[in-house]
Amino acid sequence: MRAAIFRQGSFVVDSIPDPVLAEGQVLVRTRACGICGSDLHAAKFPRQFSDLSRRSGGRFGMRDDVDIVFGHEFMGEVVALGPGTTGRFAPGTMVTSMPLTIAGTTVLSIGYNPQQPGAFAEFLPLSERMLLEVPASMTPEHAALVEPMSVGEHAAVFARLTSDDVPLVIGCGPVGLAVIAALKLRGLHPIIAADFSPGRRKLAARMGADIVIDPATASPYDALTQAITPPGFDPSRYAQLTGTTLKRRPAVLFECVGVPGVMQAMFDGAPNGARIVIVGVCMETDSFEPFFGILKQLDVQFVLGFTPQEFAATLANIASGQIDVAPLITGRVGLDGVQAAFFELANPETHAKILVEPGR
Amino acid sequence: MRAAIFRQGSFVVDSIPDPVLAEGQVLVRTRACGICGSDLHAAKFPRQFSDLSRRSGGRFGMRDDVDIVFGHEFMGEVVALGPGTTGRFAPGTMVTSMPLTIAGTTVLSIGYNPQQPGAFAEFLPLSERMLLEVPASMTPEHAALVEPMSVGEHAAVFARLTSDDVPLVIGCGPVGLAVIAALKLRGLHPIIAADFSPGRRKLAARMGADIVIDPATASPYDALTQAITPPGFDPSRYAQLTGTTLKRRPAVLFECVGVPGVMQAMFDGAPNGARIVIVGVCMETDSFEPFFGILKQLDVQFVLGFTPQEFAATLANIASGQIDVAPLITGRVGLDGVQAAFFELANPETHAKILVEPGR
Repeated sequence: MRAAIFRQGSFVVDSIPDPVLAEGQVLVRTRACGICGSDLHAAKFPRQFSDLSRRSGGRFGMRDDVDIVFGHEFMGEVVALGPGTTGRFAPGTMVTSMPLTIAGTTVLSIGYNPQQPGAFAEFLPLSERMLLEVPASMTPEHAALVEPMSVGEHAAVFARLTSDDVPLVIGCGPVGLAVIAALKLRGLHPIIAADFSPGRRKLAARMGADIVIDPATASPYDALTQAITPPGFDPSRYAQLTGTTLKRRPAVLFECVGVPGVMQAMFDGAPNGARIVIVGVCMETDSFEPFFGILKQLDVQFVLGFTPQEFAATLANIASGQIDVAPLITGRVGLDGVQAAFFELANPETHAKILVEPGR
Repeated sequence: MRAAIFRQGSFVVDSIPDPVLAEGQVLVRTRACGICGSDLHAAKFPRQFSDLSRRSGGRFGMRDDVDIVFGHEFMGEVVALGPGTTGRFAPGTMVTSMPLTIAGTTVLSIGYNPQQPGAFAEFLPLSERMLLEVPASMTPEHAALVEPMSVGEHAAVFARLTSDDVPLVIGCGPVGLAVIAALKLRGLHPIIAADFSPGRRKLAARMGADIVIDPATASPYDALTQAITPPGFDPSRYAQLTGTTLKRRPAVLFECVGVPGVMQAMFDGAPNGARIVIVGVCMETDSFEPFFGILKQLDVQFVLGFTPQEFAATLANIASGQIDVAPLITGRVGLDGVQAAFFELANPETHAKILVEPGR
């Protein structure tokens, strides 16, 4: 089959062996697969990503010395059933799955795995037990957005939200937009979001942010502090100690950037007692001053991925129209267009999510 | 009155003006005041502590260019009642208080404040509304331990503990010992504690640690992993994904050291999904790799101090004998002995808590 192969720092389209189905697997023809920020990072810093993968027990499998086929935000069409399958999904069924497959009792990650090509290829051997059918009512390719949008759902679950919380989302790339959608679903108000890019701020508003800030001209932290503070609030230590003033609403901040320095900026800007959820994946060493976290009694929750339940719930939310992913899809390319798409995604103005369509 | 004054990097005993009581204050003769790890830090790195105080809004008030009287873990005897007091505490009553005083509606911190000498002095002007009486049943000087032991109570509250949690306490100085006492009170089992010092490990066991580890010879993180893992646990991804194995118990780690690098060591050693409570006060810039927090979905809760309720509960727990602080008191000095005591506390083998007794 044809695949866009990441080889020695760039993409080449070439043939790789067709998948051989193991026990419990079905063959799926890839229809669409999104390009993830982690893909961009892996392509730009393959050695660093490989090193982290190795040091973290190899869960991702990334290596910079062998061919890798990326692609973990996929959907497609069942084309054949392997041994030991139940036939629950007839050929022709549109499906999606979390980015892993199971061969017998071996779990293989999909996306950065030399042993298991990802979805920038024509076919995937997926685990029947992990498949979810894409409802006929929805645009099939939108199912490729289930994976990134599930990241927002998961972050919202780990944030231990209450209806009184005021959220601030720092960074409105695909991760931040997914978080905004999950917050909107929960009825939180106001949702504050910040990004330097006008295009991303527009998308943030479209996904449900009530207050959208350009950090170049105003402080998102000031906006947050204003939103949590009741009229007539007395900030004096005497009023706080004696409980003679109204309380501020709880603040929860979502880090959706994933580069060094953002956490310290959030430590500086967060109000006392805030929760910070780290959703952006920072792959470098970061530094910060714990003292400010201590003074403010901050809580920092790191999150990754999603559960099967969160993945299924996100598919249902997209299918029902509660989350509209259409505005996020800003481009579509065939396998030959993968290399150019990676370059284009560097500009936040032009693109949010580009879908790779191997059959294009 | 006489006081041990921190002046230009060392202690001198000299006279300072007697306190003048403001509205709502009573005069307390200091009977005992513990030396805190933060005092040691402030004396060793006065410029750094001043800088942090200034940058954090001056809450602590520390300055390296003026005289400071330290001392914030105190108890004493009421000797006079100021204007606007109710007389709830007759002269002769033994009392303690959180380390702050209120003059009218102004809250003044006690301990590092150029405007308000601390308890390494003969007298304190305390706020009547903040006083707690030391029950006649307890050794009066033990009330000087309420403040540091409250830090453990507070950390345990912020840890959102459940009875199934397995705690690991890294560092068994006074902060770690206070945490162990608070965990023991809650019936958690087993409590694991680690410290390089044999003396401190002995105290940890005495305060209630069930498993005490010397990190020079064994990994505390391995001990924690063993304690949370049920017999027959299957660590494979297949078992985890399909829910076909028993769950591990939740792990909660307490950072009670407060120096750079410990957080990263905890990130490396913590099991997946662990909560880390940062109780040690690190005053330097720290660095770490967020990726490992992300992979493990760690939660990091920074804490500081305690509430009035936690302070009162800790006094009650010491008075009832549920927390025995006697083993922690390893030395007593007069004001003239403060300088030497600061040197001696550098050796963890000899001392846990030294009490300064200005009347000695």
